[in-house]
Amino acid sequence: MTTSDAASPERRPHVVIIGGGFGGLAAARALARAQVSITLVDRRNHHLFQPLLYQVASAVLSPGDIAAPIRWVLRDQANVDVLLAEVTRVDVADRRLHFAERSMEYDVLVVAAGVGHDYFGHDSWAEHAPGLKSLDDALELRRRILLAFERAEWCGNPDERRRLLTFAVIGGGATGVELAGALSEIARHSLRRDFRHIDPGDARVVLVEGGDRLLASFRDPIPARARAQLEAVGVEVVTGQRVTNVDAEGVQLGQTRIDAGTVIWAAGVKAPPFVASLGGPQDRAGRIVVEPDGSLPGHPEVFVIGDLAHHRHPTRDLGPLPDHPLPGVAQTAIQMGKHVARCLNADRAGWPRPRFAYKDLGSMATIGRSKAVADVAGLRISGLLAWLMWLFVHLMALVGFRNRLVVIAQWAWSYGTFQRNARLIRGSEAPDSVL
Amino acid sequence: MTTSDAASPERRPHVVIIGGGFGGLAAARALARAQVSITLVDRRNHHLFQPLLYQVASAVLSPGDIAAPIRWVLRDQANVDVLLAEVTRVDVADRRLHFAERSMEYDVLVVAAGVGHDYFGHDSWAEHAPGLKSLDDALELRRRILLAFERAEWCGNPDERRRLLTFAVIGGGATGVELAGALSEIARHSLRRDFRHIDPGDARVVLVEGGDRLLASFRDPIPARARAQLEAVGVEVVTGQRVTNVDAEGVQLGQTRIDAGTVIWAAGVKAPPFVASLGGPQDRAGRIVVEPDGSLPGHPEVFVIGDLAHHRHPTRDLGPLPDHPLPGVAQTAIQMGKHVARCLNADRAGWPRPRFAYKDLGSMATIGRSKAVADVAGLRISGLLAWLMWLFVHLMALVGFRNRLVVIAQWAWSYGTFQRNARLIRGSEAPDSVL
Repeated sequence: MTTSDAASPERRPHVVIIGGGFGGLAAARALARAQVSITLVDRRNHHLFQPLLYQVASAVLSPGDIAAPIRWVLRDQANVDVLLAEVTRVDVADRRLHFAERSMEYDVLVVAAGVGHDYFGHDSWAEHAPGLKSLDDALELRRRILLAFERAEWCGNPDERRRLLTFAVIGGGATGVELAGALSEIARHSLRRDFRHIDPGDARVVLVEGGDRLLASFRDPIPARARAQLEAVGVEVVTGQRVTNVDAEGVQLGQTRIDAGTVIWAAGVKAPPFVASLGGPQDRAGRIVVEPDGSLPGHPEVFVIGDLAHHRHPTRDLGPLPDHPLPGVAQTAIQMGKHVARCLNADRAGWPRPRFAYKDLGSMATIGRSKAVADVAGLRISGLLAWLMWLFVHLMALVGFRNRLVVIAQWAWSYGTFQRNARLIRGSEAPDSVL
Repeated sequence: MTTSDAASPERRPHVVIIGGGFGGLAAARALARAQVSITLVDRRNHHLFQPLLYQVASAVLSPGDIAAPIRWVLRDQANVDVLLAEVTRVDVADRRLHFAERSMEYDVLVVAAGVGHDYFGHDSWAEHAPGLKSLDDALELRRRILLAFERAEWCGNPDERRRLLTFAVIGGGATGVELAGALSEIARHSLRRDFRHIDPGDARVVLVEGGDRLLASFRDPIPARARAQLEAVGVEVVTGQRVTNVDAEGVQLGQTRIDAGTVIWAAGVKAPPFVASLGGPQDRAGRIVVEPDGSLPGHPEVFVIGDLAHHRHPTRDLGPLPDHPLPGVAQTAIQMGKHVARCLNADRAGWPRPRFAYKDLGSMATIGRSKAVADVAGLRISGLLAWLMWLFVHLMALVGFRNRLVVIAQWAWSYGTFQRNARLIRGSEAPDSVL
């Protein structure tokens, strides 16, 4: 499996890309015509359209609708090998990637492994408040949400029933806002006729944000509009309160207690453990503080892109960002991935590498049926128009023709009927009884 | 939660149905206008369209395409409660159903819990050769099948690579035949362009049947035609050989060894453990030998329907069946479910109960793209016409408008492109590396 064959004069540089998300795929594709041999390593076999992951958690879409095998996405690009494996460590001095039992040399490394949630040092909270980063996470959330209604239906104790029907979402970023809106919609519309002993519309959805506003990365007046739209669909919004404890029964916010049957974590950002082995400067979340060209300081052959990169250099649209990295969205990762190819082409031609220049294409978040906020091309809009824009952008961006058609069909059906049919409770952890 | 309230003159009889499969749902629906109060108990929250389960295992369809929440299916039937719970025991003398910690009284009990696979006393084989009865089973099989190709791609040892690309299917009934055909199609078409170091078309698919012919419940010449069609798509068919051992490396058939990376069990039938507590006569598979009206001997208030019922009485179409139960297909279960309602109506009117009369609507099995066999209305056909018939019947029967449209779209796409996009490897058991 080693690709080092230095004796051969025709040997192509071996580019290893860690991660088949937006950044990793963009880098691989941008190198399609380069005289390199690429290995794309991911611990999952699929690329995930993460912006729609909350729709799997909220039972609108099925996993297959928002994921495609990485192998299949890259099937026509002959210079790419795909490897299903988890990286445990990188030895940058030796230019070698380590897996559990084997290793692989590289000439150029692109680290695009993404980030996880941060429980701010309380990893024990994860059990009671799962996050939303992978398909497995989304299915686990879906399972918990649907089971809460099943349990409430057969629960004789009014306090416990009330607790079961309370959903707390921690984190007022895009994921938290979208999940809270979707949960309210499930309860008030989708499940309306399915139960005999409870009214799912009695469900309480609480969105908790430690800062003083939702969607803090959006410009005014979007944070306030998002809050108003969430409250209009029945979500309770709590800002300026930090979570001090999470247990099996609910959430503690200082003196305030929220008894909740389901707690969902959508806050914080944390780099995966192997990133520390790169030896570069890391910010508090563990992200690598990269050079203006996106490389690891002292190692021009290693690039760090996407959510894992802390890019604090002046860029075309945003100007200097002394303390904040670029927004952790698909567009940032895609632009950085393409930039890697430009740098390698420059290296080959003997030119200086270009700086990475971020082009802000705008941001948007959806809140529910016909409700969204968007900040695109200088326009800050909300409501139906923002929602239609959100719909269009996400449909166009979905990987693969088949997914797009099926998702349009599901959405049209969900919109027309208020129903959600991906409401399956699965998994070996599923209790055999709600009694 | 107890529903016994004998003091009330208006008290409706409490009908408990165990199982939300074809039989249980048919019974519940047939009782829609009856003056009864129904509780449908299932340990899953969804009804499963089991005839298409092999298409989830073979990555054509997603779980959501062939399953619908039982609650949703019955949402408009006001006399039904749905309960997610697993039955541990039935006390027929006390007319009481037991769950892990609680219990429930019934006036009429309909046992429609279905059957599992039988490893003929070798339960340790289950780990190496999973069956195909639930969505979780199908996803586990899909995971194993896709991982086998991923591992083979990066395997340096030719013998091991050959083993990884060998798939053994045990059992030549409809499930085994359909799975073997689908596996061959995945390898020879769907994955063709995705790998760089292996040719998925080299995969070996072996179908093993202990009896001397496939599809033994079909009339001649269908078993021979099915075999010919399977062999035409590259499946090796082995008949008349019994499995003597299954281990992590493959299957032993007496003196013959099949080294296989993936072994799938599609043989035998076994009743779930709680069925023994009914105390009725059981056949070797644990099925209850029922009265001509479908009831448990000595307990006219308990019906056993679907795969769990061993019905050996003369019926309209088949005549006496001294040794064989009726075929374990959806139609049998649906007809028995409807019969329960007829019996209860007769009881109420004071008439004698009708005998159960099975109407044979035919049987069919698909072998792959444009290949199938069918025995319908006296016609025994195979090939494209049988396949079109299979397609039509299964589309019409799928539960729910949305599923039907989406499944048509997926099938059309799969047929036109040879692609299978539900190729996701998931689950906490997924190894993080194929190396």
